Amino acid sequence: MSEAEETRTEISNMGEFALIEHLTKNFQLKNDSSIKGIGDDAAVLRYIARCTVVTTDMLLEGVHFDLMYVPLKHLGYKSVIVNLSDIYAMNAIPRQLTVSIAMSNRFSVEAITEFYEGVFHACKKYNVDLVGGDTNVSLKGFVISITAIGEAEKSKITYRNGAKKNDLICVSGDLGSAYMGLQLLEREKKIFLEHPEVQPDLEQQAYIVGRQLMPDARKDIVELLDKLEIVPTSMIDISDGLSSDLLHICNQSKVGCRLYEEKIPMAEETRALAFKMGIDATTAALNGGEDYELLFTISQQDYEKIKNNPDITVIGHISDKEGGAKLVTRNNNEYDLLAQGWNAFPKSE
Amino acid sequence: MSEAEETRTEISNMGEFALIEHLTKNFQLKNDSSIKGIGDDAAVLRYIARCTVVTTDMLLEGVHFDLMYVPLKHLGYKSVIVNLSDIYAMNAIPRQLTVSIAMSNRFSVEAITEFYEGVFHACKKYNVDLVGGDTNVSLKGFVISITAIGEAEKSKITYRNGAKKNDLICVSGDLGSAYMGLQLLEREKKIFLEHPEVQPDLEQQAYIVGRQLMPDARKDIVELLDKLEIVPTSMIDISDGLSSDLLHICNQSKVGCRLYEEKIPMAEETRALAFKMGIDATTAALNGGEDYELLFTISQQDYEKIKNNPDITVIGHISDKEGGAKLVTRNNNEYDLLAQGWNAFPKSE
Repeated sequence: MSEAEETRTEISNMGEFALIEHLTKNFQLKNDSSIKGIGDDAAVLRYIARCTVVTTDMLLEGVHFDLMYVPLKHLGYKSVIVNLSDIYAMNAIPRQLTVSIAMSNRFSVEAITEFYEGVFHACKKYNVDLVGGDTNVSLKGFVISITAIGEAEKSKITYRNGAKKNDLICVSGDLGSAYMGLQLLEREKKIFLEHPEVQPDLEQQAYIVGRQLMPDARKDIVELLDKLEIVPTSMIDISDGLSSDLLHICNQSKVGCRLYEEKIPMAEETRALAFKMGIDATTAALNGGEDYELLFTISQQDYEKIKNNPDITVIGHISDKEGGAKLVTRNNNEYDLLAQGWNAFPKSE
Repeated sequence: MSEAEETRTEISNMGEFALIEHLTKNFQLKNDSSIKGIGDDAAVLRYIARCTVVTTDMLLEGVHFDLMYVPLKHLGYKSVIVNLSDIYAMNAIPRQLTVSIAMSNRFSVEAITEFYEGVFHACKKYNVDLVGGDTNVSLKGFVISITAIGEAEKSKITYRNGAKKNDLICVSGDLGSAYMGLQLLEREKKIFLEHPEVQPDLEQQAYIVGRQLMPDARKDIVELLDKLEIVPTSMIDISDGLSSDLLHICNQSKVGCRLYEEKIPMAEETRALAFKMGIDATTAALNGGEDYELLFTISQQDYEKIKNNPDITVIGHISDKEGGAKLVTRNNNEYDLLAQGWNAFPKSE
């Protein structure tokens, strides 16, 4: 519903170097570890006595996002968040970012500038430096590839494979809202396509729509764990859905788990909208994905440190592998957890 | 002219995790600095007392490569080389790589496996570890985004901005052959499209076609400079063409230059083919690009160390900014050097 810019400058009229200069002029290096940013064959970083943590993600129009309802500024912001979240999920602090994009000539300089404003906003909020990237033309659509780089003390890096029997399974924030936000936006898109005169009705759902369009990465949780002197035994961010991501921890740690449905934290708005739209709320939390909350395990002796924290919920515990990965429902039935989250390779129609 | 695989496995029948496992099973971590590779939220690296150097490149089908004449294995190989070349151009040693791809359902598991065989071959040859990436479906075409990471002592990192008046301008290898290779492949593609019964005639041009399809990154030059105890005053790799890349050095170093046409190193095959195809050989070297040779400046006192090296040619010298960036032709005319290399944003038709 955007693209009706007041002025439109063609990217081809600007040239690559002028465009890069234009898009990155507000970005300043803020971290001591960023020695050289954009403008050479490569960026130069320096981490003293710490490990370097690297993650990368590619996002494609029509596959990962729909510009019918995702404003470009939000897209720029969220593309960064998705990557920062992976760095936090290592119990590390992100410091640098490279952003590569390709776009067709359907996009104007003004549109790309909006995208970079979102990138800038995320970099500023999370104190991350844009140090490189690549800008390309595409034959069709918009493609984004981001690499995030961070640092951590070796002893604090948290993998997926360290969960032990009897560890507590914890999750930050609440789940399922990003998925419900997507359902709502998809519904309004459908209505808009059929009845362009009807205004979208999202005002009552600012929280849920915001969770889909402008998620946070849980920097605060990594800082809190550090303050509480907790090193989780395992950690992952919830991008594919609680089921799928908890199964990653179980598989890589060679353990089982018991996850309690009644413990899964959900916002009241999420439950209410799920009910209204006829979607099972627990399913939204288990399989929805895109919450970018942190899922982690801690040893029982750390329980006292987190038990009163409103941002962290204990949702189950780790069991031995033989017990399997189980969901215990409200009425005390047990089911195998299934990975039914995001599928990068759907069957072709 | 590929895609006629004997067996064809649909990517959608394999699933993302099985595919990644299949594609990366032969990759082993070889560098001490690679602590954790594929399989977690992020890779973990550790460089002791050295700087981290990071570069990234995105390549798109129909924009950067044409699968009509680029075999997928060569594409995988070259995609890596392009990035390693940027690390070497910092006078640094590449150690790790992330490879993200997106492909439409036109591509089979066998096709993607071929691509990764090329990636594997390059990683093995240059002793680089594949530590991460992302695998996606695209609505159309094949997209590649690679990030390369390397290390260097801080005092040896070579930027584009350090060239000083009277420094010698040096280049490795020979120039223009990759461009002539492209011309030849484009010509044969045209013939093939018009007369599919005619076999392409490339056998006599193995060197030139090889320079286009399977270029080398000049690891050997970085090692040689180290052995000779030369730290160049500036360096860049020739991806856009000698003119354009020398102008980057001049602009960033705030100097001028005099480049001598007669000194530009070119292979006999390149000159002969250029003559045959009616292309000016010097233009191929100046504006062709994709040679991935290293262009660097050294102070005059280092001249003795390199003067007899067959892999390095002195092609001119740095002058003050006021003198401008000049090409001195064989018949002693002077022209302004112009950046006419690769344009990422061609005007739409």
